[in-house]
Amino acid sequence: MTRGIFLVFEGIDASGKSTQAKRIAKERDALFTFEPGDTAVGKDLRRWLLDAATPMKPETEALLMTADRSHHVDTLIKPTLESAKSVVADRFYASTLAYQGYGRGVDLSQLRAATQLAIGDCLPDLTILIDLPVDVANERRERNAKDRFESSDIDFHNRVRSGYLELAKTDGVEWFVVDGTKSEAEVAALIDERLAALPW
Amino acid sequence: MTRGIFLVFEGIDASGKSTQAKRIAKERDALFTFEPGDTAVGKDLRRWLLDAATPMKPETEALLMTADRSHHVDTLIKPTLESAKSVVADRFYASTLAYQGYGRGVDLSQLRAATQLAIGDCLPDLTILIDLPVDVANERRERNAKDRFESSDIDFHNRVRSGYLELAKTDGVEWFVVDGTKSEAEVAALIDERLAALPW
Repeated sequence: MTRGIFLVFEGIDASGKSTQAKRIAKERDALFTFEPGDTAVGKDLRRWLLDAATPMKPETEALLMTADRSHHVDTLIKPTLESAKSVVADRFYASTLAYQGYGRGVDLSQLRAATQLAIGDCLPDLTILIDLPVDVANERRERNAKDRFESSDIDFHNRVRSGYLELAKTDGVEWFVVDGTKSEAEVAALIDERLAALPW
Repeated sequence: MTRGIFLVFEGIDASGKSTQAKRIAKERDALFTFEPGDTAVGKDLRRWLLDAATPMKPETEALLMTADRSHHVDTLIKPTLESAKSVVADRFYASTLAYQGYGRGVDLSQLRAATQLAIGDCLPDLTILIDLPVDVANERRERNAKDRFESSDIDFHNRVRSGYLELAKTDGVEWFVVDGTKSEAEVAALIDERLAALPW
C-alpha cells in the first residue's frame, strides 16, 4: 500500500497558512491536523503553554512541544500515512526551530537532536512556508482581531521570520516559499501549482 | 553567597536510594526532591507516564521526562541552590539515559542533547548510584509489596543496571557507586564517608 503524502504548512501568525492547510486537506480528502495540541497529551501541553501563570523558560517550551510532536507522530500522523491517507499539518518541527531556536535563542543543534527523537523517519514530503513581513502580519491582526503584536514581539517575530527563510534554504528537505502578501487566491494558485509536482 | 550542594541518587527500584536520599536531606537541612513529578507540570506528566491507557513510545516518555526536568531545574532546583540551600534529588538525568536509553534503546546522543537543553549548567556535584543486582531487587520487592518484576522486566532492568554502571564510568561528572546489597547502615556509612569529601 502506498504511503500518504505528508504536507506541512509553516509561517508566522496571520500568514494565512491555516486557511490554506484546511483548504488543501478538504480538497484532497487528507487529514488536517495541527500542533501543538491535537492529541490528548497535547491538549494538556497546550493548556500549560498558553497559561501565563506557569512561566516557562524557552527550553522547557521547546521540550514540551517536542514531546507533544513525538506523541502526535506516533499516534496520529504515522498511522494515518501508513493507511495511505495523506496528512496536512498546520505547524511541525520547523515551528520549534523558528520560534524557540531562532526567536528565543535556544541551541539549534540540541533542538535538532530532540526533534530527531520525536519524529524519527517521519519527514514531510513538502513544507510550505507562507512568508510575510511582520508589519503586514501586524496590520492583518489589527484588522481582524483588534490585536497587534507588542513592540518586543515585533523583534521576536522578525527573528522567527528570518529563521523560517533560513530553514527553507538549509533544512535539507524540500521547502516551498510562497509570498504571503499576495491575495488568498494567488497564494492558493501558487500552492496548487507546486502540489501538481507531487505524486498525489 | 555560596551555591548549595546538588546531590543526586540513582538506582533501580528497591535499591534503597529514596531512603538514603531522604535521610541525607533531613540530616543536612537540604531540600529533598524527586523526578518525575515534583512540579505542577510534572504532576500531569507523571499521571500520563503512569497511565497505561495512553501508550507511549519510549522517545515520547524520554521527552516528557526531560521537559519535566527542565521545568524542575528552572523553578525549583536552581533557585534553591542559588539561595545557598542544598538539594538532594531522587533521580535526575541519568535515569532517562539508563531507562529509556540503555533500557529501551533510545539513541543516547540525542538523549544527551535533549538533556543539555533541560539542565544547562545545572550539573550535580555528585551522583550516588546504589547498585543492586536485579534478582536481589526482585526479592526485596516481593517481600515488601507482594510484587515481582515480570520476566520481560528482568531483562529490561538488567540493561538499566548495566547502563547505570557504564554511566558511572563514562559520564564525565563525579559518580560514587555503593554496593546496595550491604545493610542499610553499611550503605549509609559508605555514603557519609564519601560526603565528607564534599565542601558541605
